[in-house]
Amino acid sequence: MEQFSGYPTQEPDSVSSFSVDAVSSFSVDAQGLQKQIDELSNFSDTPSPSVTRILYSKMDVFARRYIKNLMGLSGLSIREDAVGNIFGRWEGYEPELTAVATGSHIDAIPYSGKYDGVVGVLGAIEAINVLRRSGFKPRRSLEVILFTSEEPTRFGISCLGSRLLAGNEALMKSLETVVDSQNISFFDAARAAGYANDEEDLPSVFLKKGSYSAFVELHIEQGPILEEEGISIGIVTAIAAPASIKVDFEGNGGHAGAVLMPNRNDAGLAAAELALAVEKHVLESGSIDTVGTVGILELHPGAINSIPSKSHLEIDTRDINEMRRNTVIEKTHQSAITIAKNRGVRLSEFKIINQDPPALSDKSITKAMQAASQELNLSHKLMISRAYHDSLFMARISPMGMIFIPCYKGYSHKPEEYASIEDIANGVKVLALTLTKLSLY
Amino acid sequence: MEQFSGYPTQEPDSVSSFSVDAVSSFSVDAQGLQKQIDELSNFSDTPSPSVTRILYSKMDVFARRYIKNLMGLSGLSIREDAVGNIFGRWEGYEPELTAVATGSHIDAIPYSGKYDGVVGVLGAIEAINVLRRSGFKPRRSLEVILFTSEEPTRFGISCLGSRLLAGNEALMKSLETVVDSQNISFFDAARAAGYANDEEDLPSVFLKKGSYSAFVELHIEQGPILEEEGISIGIVTAIAAPASIKVDFEGNGGHAGAVLMPNRNDAGLAAAELALAVEKHVLESGSIDTVGTVGILELHPGAINSIPSKSHLEIDTRDINEMRRNTVIEKTHQSAITIAKNRGVRLSEFKIINQDPPALSDKSITKAMQAASQELNLSHKLMISRAYHDSLFMARISPMGMIFIPCYKGYSHKPEEYASIEDIANGVKVLALTLTKLSLY
Repeated sequence: MEQFSGYPTQEPDSVSSFSVDAVSSFSVDAQGLQKQIDELSNFSDTPSPSVTRILYSKMDVFARRYIKNLMGLSGLSIREDAVGNIFGRWEGYEPELTAVATGSHIDAIPYSGKYDGVVGVLGAIEAINVLRRSGFKPRRSLEVILFTSEEPTRFGISCLGSRLLAGNEALMKSLETVVDSQNISFFDAARAAGYANDEEDLPSVFLKKGSYSAFVELHIEQGPILEEEGISIGIVTAIAAPASIKVDFEGNGGHAGAVLMPNRNDAGLAAAELALAVEKHVLESGSIDTVGTVGILELHPGAINSIPSKSHLEIDTRDINEMRRNTVIEKTHQSAITIAKNRGVRLSEFKIINQDPPALSDKSITKAMQAASQELNLSHKLMISRAYHDSLFMARISPMGMIFIPCYKGYSHKPEEYASIEDIANGVKVLALTLTKLSLY
Repeated sequence: MEQFSGYPTQEPDSVSSFSVDAVSSFSVDAQGLQKQIDELSNFSDTPSPSVTRILYSKMDVFARRYIKNLMGLSGLSIREDAVGNIFGRWEGYEPELTAVATGSHIDAIPYSGKYDGVVGVLGAIEAINVLRRSGFKPRRSLEVILFTSEEPTRFGISCLGSRLLAGNEALMKSLETVVDSQNISFFDAARAAGYANDEEDLPSVFLKKGSYSAFVELHIEQGPILEEEGISIGIVTAIAAPASIKVDFEGNGGHAGAVLMPNRNDAGLAAAELALAVEKHVLESGSIDTVGTVGILELHPGAINSIPSKSHLEIDTRDINEMRRNTVIEKTHQSAITIAKNRGVRLSEFKIINQDPPALSDKSITKAMQAASQELNLSHKLMISRAYHDSLFMARISPMGMIFIPCYKGYSHKPEEYASIEDIANGVKVLALTLTKLSLY
């Protein structure tokens, strides 16, 4: 399985178990958890029911404060690193052992929903509360992690926090020059939110391989399978391989009335052709698992009576098969070249921003999650994550697993995103029980 | 010629003439005029060499002040109407006669150049100076007009000032509700610039048909013909018929990783298809005179990992043949319906913003311009204006004519827009001499 970057561990002979009595006493404060989800969603730059929470914005800072407060109330000791990854720790009775971690993100792309990521942060804190209430004492310490900027909205870099935790030196380098759409540098933005006071300090974010004995993320499925099949818990075996690309075309522009059609080299039409070409190449793969999206397409100068002189596209493509996904990228590149030639425009940029390999879940963690679901009498199935997550990068430094719960029609990244509190509570229970197994192991 | 809205007048038996001696004394202050063009270009929201001057912005207000100052220095008495059309009047010795007017605009779309419109305002003021220096005394009063918002940038309405002058009641009505992209109302924007203090006062902008005995506009060609053929002066016989359309598609959006291709209804790809369909339908007309442009294409939410749930296009199409242009509009509408159906998106808007008829120049004015060019020994040719101008609407209330001068490669609406000061000075001379003929007539 060379193409998978999952961190291999030896399979344990038996998974440590929490007593059945204790499990039956697991009680999730569903009402309180729903209230937290709703309250957190108010830290948004767009009106309810949409959520927009951009890295290091005022609303992001408010939301972080809210989470740190909850961590404190749950008795966790808090640490923040230089880019704002937040760690809440419950010390185990053998604190010298490597800890077990769980967590997710709370940033939200423009006009999205209130469950993506949030369920895995608030749910993790509630899992800690469940365990405390049940009388559980962790052997290995337990940590809840809030990852900085899983979404690529502000600086075009997805999973910024977890990529850095995994020791990505190239990313660290690129943070020195990256700016947002308002030309604000990464470090100025981070400092405005109270982080990165010392730019030299960035390597301190890196975690060594083996820093955790396990990492588990609870997340809404963001797809329709669990809901359609009426299953409570998805146990993720692998995370699809994402890639993102930026493309720029440049033409001569000109006046929409005066420049006759044969004299045009319209950068906007080049972009339109490429967007359709991406769709075509994705469908040519022949696999249902290949997806490709043009989520950003911008024209310059953007006036009704001006032929576009520049266009900018951002393309996302993913697959559980890395080679198939790379074929889409290659074909898209060929199309961009051909379109530029035919239309007499210049392909001034075709940049692959990231081209990550897929990740495999760790078998012992998968087993622990299966056992937990069984003990809780919850239906469950093994599945693939088509969306990527911080787990994709945590897999580089720790054995990794993910728990999915159903969400309404598979909707995500839009205001209609929804998961019932019953499904969320089930996910929290499975997470809590899995943490006991991994902590005692 | 039913399809033309040109204002018909009787052809005069002879065009009144200015003495040949006086003509030979015509001197344009080319250096001063170039300096004014350069100075005016500094009132811009984007860096040189680009110019961005949006209706009622601070830079627009500064530029208007600059023009009023020049009008005052040229001895013109200034009047401003409720939307900021500015009139500078040189009283004739028979002031009870209807005046002869000339003028253009100074607003500039984002990242455009410094000659479009400007040459017809600064050039008109310089033409007045030329006539004063030559000792000319106007019989009919002469007026220089600066028209408000020829470009549709801010409120999506082109030729806002001249449309209103021509008594457009529907436009007046729509100004009560229109907002810009920042949700600022027309009236708030106008008040911020010192206009529209009384919303009820808008009908005072209307001018009666016959308010002017003639209107002449000097303008860069915005096309390559004069330069390619080495001709100094273009005499416009007709202005092509412009139309503009706004289109919105809506789909379900969703997560770029999780929603599989067969389950998508991507509003962005619908927009891409429609942009290419516009080009196709324009080319199908079979005439070189048909043009169509998608200058605006916007995606919502505009995130790399989000399937576009909404898209917005603005389409400009023009022709000298109104029926042919309307065929493009109809085919585009049909395509929008078909694309929406095939992709399962909703065509939530297909709105024709304006669909203006072409305008014919007045024959007596054309003759006066031809005679002026001949007397000045300047090569000239009759031609069509493919771009529209305030003249298109002034033709509804006054006999109309236009003078074109060459511009570099036909470039317009971009920073590379350029006209040599020699060509501009030639245009000013032809304008000045034409004004004498029309004033004395």
